[in-house]
Amino acid sequence: MQPSAQSGSDSLEVEAAVAKIGKYASSESGDTVELVERPHGGLSIVVADGQRSGRSAKTISNIVVRKAISLLAEGVRDGAVARATHDYLRTHRGGKVSAELSIVSIDLVTSTLVVSRNSRCPVWLRQADGSSWLDDPSEAVGIHRNTKPSITEVPLQRGLTLVVFTDGIYAAGARTGGKMDLDGIFARQDGENQLGAQELADAILDAALTLDQGRPRDDATVLVVKLKPQRHPGEVRRLRIRFPL
Amino acid sequence: MQPSAQSGSDSLEVEAAVAKIGKYASSESGDTVELVERPHGGLSIVVADGQRSGRSAKTISNIVVRKAISLLAEGVRDGAVARATHDYLRTHRGGKVSAELSIVSIDLVTSTLVVSRNSRCPVWLRQADGSSWLDDPSEAVGIHRNTKPSITEVPLQRGLTLVVFTDGIYAAGARTGGKMDLDGIFARQDGENQLGAQELADAILDAALTLDQGRPRDDATVLVVKLKPQRHPGEVRRLRIRFPL
Repeated sequence: MQPSAQSGSDSLEVEAAVAKIGKYASSESGDTVELVERPHGGLSIVVADGQRSGRSAKTISNIVVRKAISLLAEGVRDGAVARATHDYLRTHRGGKVSAELSIVSIDLVTSTLVVSRNSRCPVWLRQADGSSWLDDPSEAVGIHRNTKPSITEVPLQRGLTLVVFTDGIYAAGARTGGKMDLDGIFARQDGENQLGAQELADAILDAALTLDQGRPRDDATVLVVKLKPQRHPGEVRRLRIRFPL
Repeated sequence: MQPSAQSGSDSLEVEAAVAKIGKYASSESGDTVELVERPHGGLSIVVADGQRSGRSAKTISNIVVRKAISLLAEGVRDGAVARATHDYLRTHRGGKVSAELSIVSIDLVTSTLVVSRNSRCPVWLRQADGSSWLDDPSEAVGIHRNTKPSITEVPLQRGLTLVVFTDGIYAAGARTGGKMDLDGIFARQDGENQLGAQELADAILDAALTLDQGRPRDDATVLVVKLKPQRHPGEVRRLRIRFPL
């Protein structure tokens, strides 16, 4: 929710959307998602998946996200945020607890999208010239010495779509022998980049829930970022959150 | 984005939405809005309007929001968060800089909506038995000794609507002799509680922009929280953010 450093020139709009559900019959989701304004312009979204499930996983993912968010709010660069968050968790938990951590930044200083992965889950990226999986080997934070993020930086250009998810999406269906066909969802449901970010996030979470027969076996979170032509001119920024009581 | 402590019993959904725009021809908005999970369950939304406009106002509102968010994330109760944020700003800026601060919490422990106001702007509240303005005298944070928030707490019940805004909304039209008819907007456009939170926030911001002839004379932010029957069953939580590049 921060003004742009460079308004109006190309009439693009960022839409970022999250859909998320906790493990079936668990009162706490071990996935945490939060966002923060970048002090020099733009927005960062932090997704963490704490080891195990329930209250302890929630505590871990909360600690990790709070540390990352507070550093991002101070203007610390993303790669240093991921390293510092790792060191912090490893120091405070003696290297015994891990979390998967993804940081997605819309950086208006560099006009780039920056993705920092400390996760086994790959990230899907579509640009004007085609799609790819960001799947360089990458370690969760909290365990080993000197863990580093895998970082990808791409220009903020029309047609860009980025999809980040946690293990509950990626491994959905494992209990019943099913498997998420993510490439199929992207091709069939959003082949022409026709969906909004929230619709695509919902479609992916729905597919995971269907594979898990409505009883997710793990906390499941999906984050979609899209850059599209601006639908209505103007400088209004919007944020919406919806959740059941 | 946190699981509910009490799922499914009454099938209500919280929808919270923000619409926000910076002062015309100013590259920075002095209004900041951020949200945070409450560690014991629920969500808090913090709105701050820093004194003056441009970069210095942005810095002040950011400092205030960061402090409030970090305390809320630690589980500090809302009244103490507002007091501590005031003391912090007053100590660090020598009582020379003020900010208007509103904290809105959906507290799943108490099943209440808690509104803490340190702002001249009133807050609009509609419950099943009618609507009212929360307009107890209330001081901005940062200046005087021992400033306290004005706190209102109401049950999380169907039909609840809460509208918080900053001065750029409340005083829209002052340049041209116009005046926001907020009661009129609520009665005419949402008299039957038919709008979604984002639609109502957009309608209010649109009215302010119209009065200011598309050139807002101050940073303007509106936050709407609604409790409605759940449209689709399920435990999915959703977050969406949209902004022009």
